[in-house]
Amino acid sequence: MQNIKLTIEYDGTRYCGWQKQKIQGRVLERKRKKPSVQETVESCLQKILKQKVNLVASGRTDSGVHAFGQVANFRTASGIFPDKVKSALNGNLPRDIRISNAEQVPWGFHSQYSTKSKIYRYLILNQEYKVPFFGRYTYWFKFPLNIKLMRNAARHLSGRHDFKVFCASGSGVKGTTRNIKQILINPLNIFSANLICIEVEADGFLYNMVRNIVGTLIDVGRGRFEPDYIKEIIRSKNRALAGFCVPARGLYLAKVNYPRKSHTVA
Amino acid sequence: MQNIKLTIEYDGTRYCGWQKQKIQGRVLERKRKKPSVQETVESCLQKILKQKVNLVASGRTDSGVHAFGQVANFRTASGIFPDKVKSALNGNLPRDIRISNAEQVPWGFHSQYSTKSKIYRYLILNQEYKVPFFGRYTYWFKFPLNIKLMRNAARHLSGRHDFKVFCASGSGVKGTTRNIKQILINPLNIFSANLICIEVEADGFLYNMVRNIVGTLIDVGRGRFEPDYIKEIIRSKNRALAGFCVPARGLYLAKVNYPRKSHTVA
Repeated sequence: MQNIKLTIEYDGTRYCGWQKQKIQGRVLERKRKKPSVQETVESCLQKILKQKVNLVASGRTDSGVHAFGQVANFRTASGIFPDKVKSALNGNLPRDIRISNAEQVPWGFHSQYSTKSKIYRYLILNQEYKVPFFGRYTYWFKFPLNIKLMRNAARHLSGRHDFKVFCASGSGVKGTTRNIKQILINPLNIFSANLICIEVEADGFLYNMVRNIVGTLIDVGRGRFEPDYIKEIIRSKNRALAGFCVPARGLYLAKVNYPRKSHTVA
Repeated sequence: MQNIKLTIEYDGTRYCGWQKQKIQGRVLERKRKKPSVQETVESCLQKILKQKVNLVASGRTDSGVHAFGQVANFRTASGIFPDKVKSALNGNLPRDIRISNAEQVPWGFHSQYSTKSKIYRYLILNQEYKVPFFGRYTYWFKFPLNIKLMRNAARHLSGRHDFKVFCASGSGVKGTTRNIKQILINPLNIFSANLICIEVEADGFLYNMVRNIVGTLIDVGRGRFEPDYIKEIIRSKNRALAGFCVPARGLYLAKVNYPRKSHTVA
C-alpha cells in the first residue's frame, strides 16, 4: 500500500474545472459536455493501475482556470513506482494535462487537509491591442493600469481579514476569514506584450476570491478607487462595493505548499 | 499620396506563411487551403480603403513561423490617418493577426530594401515533459541542453561568414555570405516551464538559416558536437555535416531594424 502525490499542470480551457460535476436536472446536463480534469486523470490512472482510484486534490479550480502546480494524491495497493506513474500518465493523458512530479508520501498525507498555503497567479494583458498569442491565457484590459497604486492598495489586503466582500454569493461557506501572506504585483514582458502578473498567497481562498480581488485592484489601477478605499471595501462586507470579477482564463493555481514533515515517508 | 509602415504580429499556425502562394497544379492547390498573412491583411486593408493595396514586407516568413515584429508598407492615395488604419485593421483582422503600430514614412521607404538588420528568436522548451501551454509556440526538446557549450559554439557564428552550410537546398539564392551581428542564448522561465531563447541578429538570412543554426546548436548543447566543430561545419559548406532543421513553430520574426533617417518624413 502506498500514497502517491502528483503535481499537475493543465490548460483549463477545455474543462469544466477540476471537479466532477454532479448532475441535477437539465442545465447541468448541458454543462457536463465539458469533462473535468479530475475524471480525465482518474480514468487514465485506472487504465494504468487496472483498479479504481480516488484522486484527492488540494481544492477545486473553476471552469476555465489553469494550473501549473495543482496537487492531488491517491492511495493504492499497487506496488508501481511513482516515476512509472508519471511517465505512463504523460504518455496517455490529453496534451493539455501533464504530470510534472510524482512521489511517494506518508500514508497520512492529504492534498487538501495537509495544505499550509496556496499561491494563485493572475495574468492581465495591459495594452491597447490584444496580441495574437496568449489569448486563452490572459485577460485583456486595454486602459493603462498604474502598478504603484495597485501595490499601495494591495498592502491593505495582506494579513488576516474577513474577506466576505470578495466571496461570490451562494458559496455557502461559513467562516470567511483568511490570511493573505503575500501579494506581489509585477510587470512581465513576454516578447513585445505588456503583462501584469498578480500573485496571491494565502492559507485558503474563498469562492472567486482571487478574481474579485484582481477586479478591485484593476479598479484602483485605472483610477476608479483610491488605494485606501480598499480598507472600507473590506470593512463593508458589501459585495456591491468591490470591483468586478475578472474572467477565469487569466487565473493559474501556481503552487500548493505543505509543511515539510508531511512529505517524509516514515 | 502617402507611404504607411505597419508593424505586424501574428500567430503563424493557421497560415501558409507571409506570402501568397502561386498555384501550380494540384499539390499547391491543396496547400493553398491555408491563407497567407499577406493576403489576409491586404484584403482587410482593401475593404477599409476601398482601393487595391500592395503590401511589401521586410521578407517572407515560412508556413507556421510567428512574428511579433514583421514590417510591411503600402502606398496609398487615401488621406486616411495611420492611427485610423491601425484601429480599423485591428477591428477587422482575425484574432491571430494584430497591428502594433502604423505610421507615415518617407515615400522612398521600402520594407525590404531599406532593412538594416533583422532579429529572429527561437524558443526551445527544454525539459523532460511537454507542458500543457505554449504547444504551438515552442519546440520541445526533452534531453538537457548545456547553454554554456551552446554559447561557446555561437561565438564562431558571429561575424561575416559564408553560411551556405545552413541554407536549405533549392533556395536558388546566389550570394550566401551574411553578417551575424549578435547571437544571444538565454534561459527563460515562464511559470514552471524551462525555456531556452536563441536570438539571432543579422543583416540578412538565408532560407531556413535560423532553423538550421538552432538545430546545430542543439547538437552542441546535447554533446553531439564540440563547440569548436562549428568552425569546420561552416568551412565545409556541406549541409550534411550541420545539425537538423528545427520546426517552424518555435520561430519568431522579432524585429526589423531600419536606418534612422529612413523614418523621417521629409
